[in-house]
Amino acid sequence: MTIILYDIPSTLPGNAWSPSTWKTRYTLNIKGIPYKTEWVEYPDIEPVAKKLGIAPTFKSTDGTDCYTLPALYDPSTKTYVSDSLLIAVYLDKTYPDTPSLLPKGTLGLQTAFSYAFLSSIVELRDFIIPAECEKLNPRSVEYFRHTREADLGKTLEEATPKGDDAVVKWGKYKDGLGKVDEWYAQNGGSGPFLMGETLSWADVIVASSAIWVRTVFGEDSQKWKDVTSWHGGRWNDLMENMKKYETVI
Amino acid sequence: MTIILYDIPSTLPGNAWSPSTWKTRYTLNIKGIPYKTEWVEYPDIEPVAKKLGIAPTFKSTDGTDCYTLPALYDPSTKTYVSDSLLIAVYLDKTYPDTPSLLPKGTLGLQTAFSYAFLSSIVELRDFIIPAECEKLNPRSVEYFRHTREADLGKTLEEATPKGDDAVVKWGKYKDGLGKVDEWYAQNGGSGPFLMGETLSWADVIVASSAIWVRTVFGEDSQKWKDVTSWHGGRWNDLMENMKKYETVI
Repeated sequence: MTIILYDIPSTLPGNAWSPSTWKTRYTLNIKGIPYKTEWVEYPDIEPVAKKLGIAPTFKSTDGTDCYTLPALYDPSTKTYVSDSLLIAVYLDKTYPDTPSLLPKGTLGLQTAFSYAFLSSIVELRDFIIPAECEKLNPRSVEYFRHTREADLGKTLEEATPKGDDAVVKWGKYKDGLGKVDEWYAQNGGSGPFLMGETLSWADVIVASSAIWVRTVFGEDSQKWKDVTSWHGGRWNDLMENMKKYETVI
Repeated sequence: MTIILYDIPSTLPGNAWSPSTWKTRYTLNIKGIPYKTEWVEYPDIEPVAKKLGIAPTFKSTDGTDCYTLPALYDPSTKTYVSDSLLIAVYLDKTYPDTPSLLPKGTLGLQTAFSYAFLSSIVELRDFIIPAECEKLNPRSVEYFRHTREADLGKTLEEATPKGDDAVVKWGKYKDGLGKVDEWYAQNGGSGPFLMGETLSWADVIVASSAIWVRTVFGEDSQKWKDVTSWHGGRWNDLMENMKKYETVI
């Protein structure tokens, strides 16, 4: 009777790479709740979700239901939950004795942080989506390339920033993280987390984005070296503090 | 020995209108700290700040120091403070027995909220900046028009959205506030504020933006009627709860 985390596999060591599913993996690891992973390739997400009765997480502009991971099955309540934040809220409610990532009253602030963070680092996607495609298994590659290229209106190779454009966009990503660094600096150095010593949902969002960079580009890549060197080493420190929650089960 | 709040006057009843200085006015009123206002016309802000030794609040892209209001003088510590958030932090530290708008650990989250909120409602500025100019005193009108038109590269009249463009932009403002409404909804109806029953800096930011709309367009304007009718009356409820902190001294 173990919780099942539905995640998307890859060819990378340890499999896990998605910033969305990492939010739930971190949450489960921080809470210390036992779980196992069921790996679902991209083209199987929608059929699996429909078969199991996992709710869609958003509607596309034409009103179609869209199914995404993470999703979770909790056999103790016979409940399927999708969407990383809804999962965190569900786990807080169902396992109130485990550490919460949502200090009382902060759920609205954490949601606004998520919006602020993601809109500050939009340029990262230009680099990482094409690179991510190369790390997926063949069944997912085809689906991922087809859907992303339809969205972008060009091939992933064409979409990848190059030359001066790459320098400018990588600089904008750095500047965006610089804004996030200023928010972190508001804690006055009282701890590595946005709320100081208190690890919260905001840190899980930032760490999930960082682990995406680390796994897709590789620990030895210049891109990861850049990120860990920026902003006085803030992101390196944060990831050092998150390391104990990176177990993939 | 009363605190002095430096604010920008207008021809409106009650004078106060600026969303920036309203943040400090709300803060002082919520804390119940006695103060009086010294009204400073736009062209006098920089000379007054330099004369008194009030710090600039930001640097322009060419590196020039920029001086803005609110600023505050506290005779009990002989301190000048500028920037509404720095003022709130200063007042928390200096008057620890007054209500705080910054619950412990949330300063980074509140700062990120400010960014998320302001970037969600950018279209409001297109409507309100030209309308605001008409409410200033003659000395400020000239300065305000000159500096804003230099920034915009067109006259305020040209910059004002008209016809279909106005409908689209007002709709985008509504949609932006709709996103903020979703963040508020995360408190599960536990109170009128983003943190539920706890009034915090985020609400002061939202209310200061709302009071800007109310004072510049007028309480009977269609624009204010729109805002108070949107999102299940959330902004109307919020402003009802802020009413007791709207005294202008």
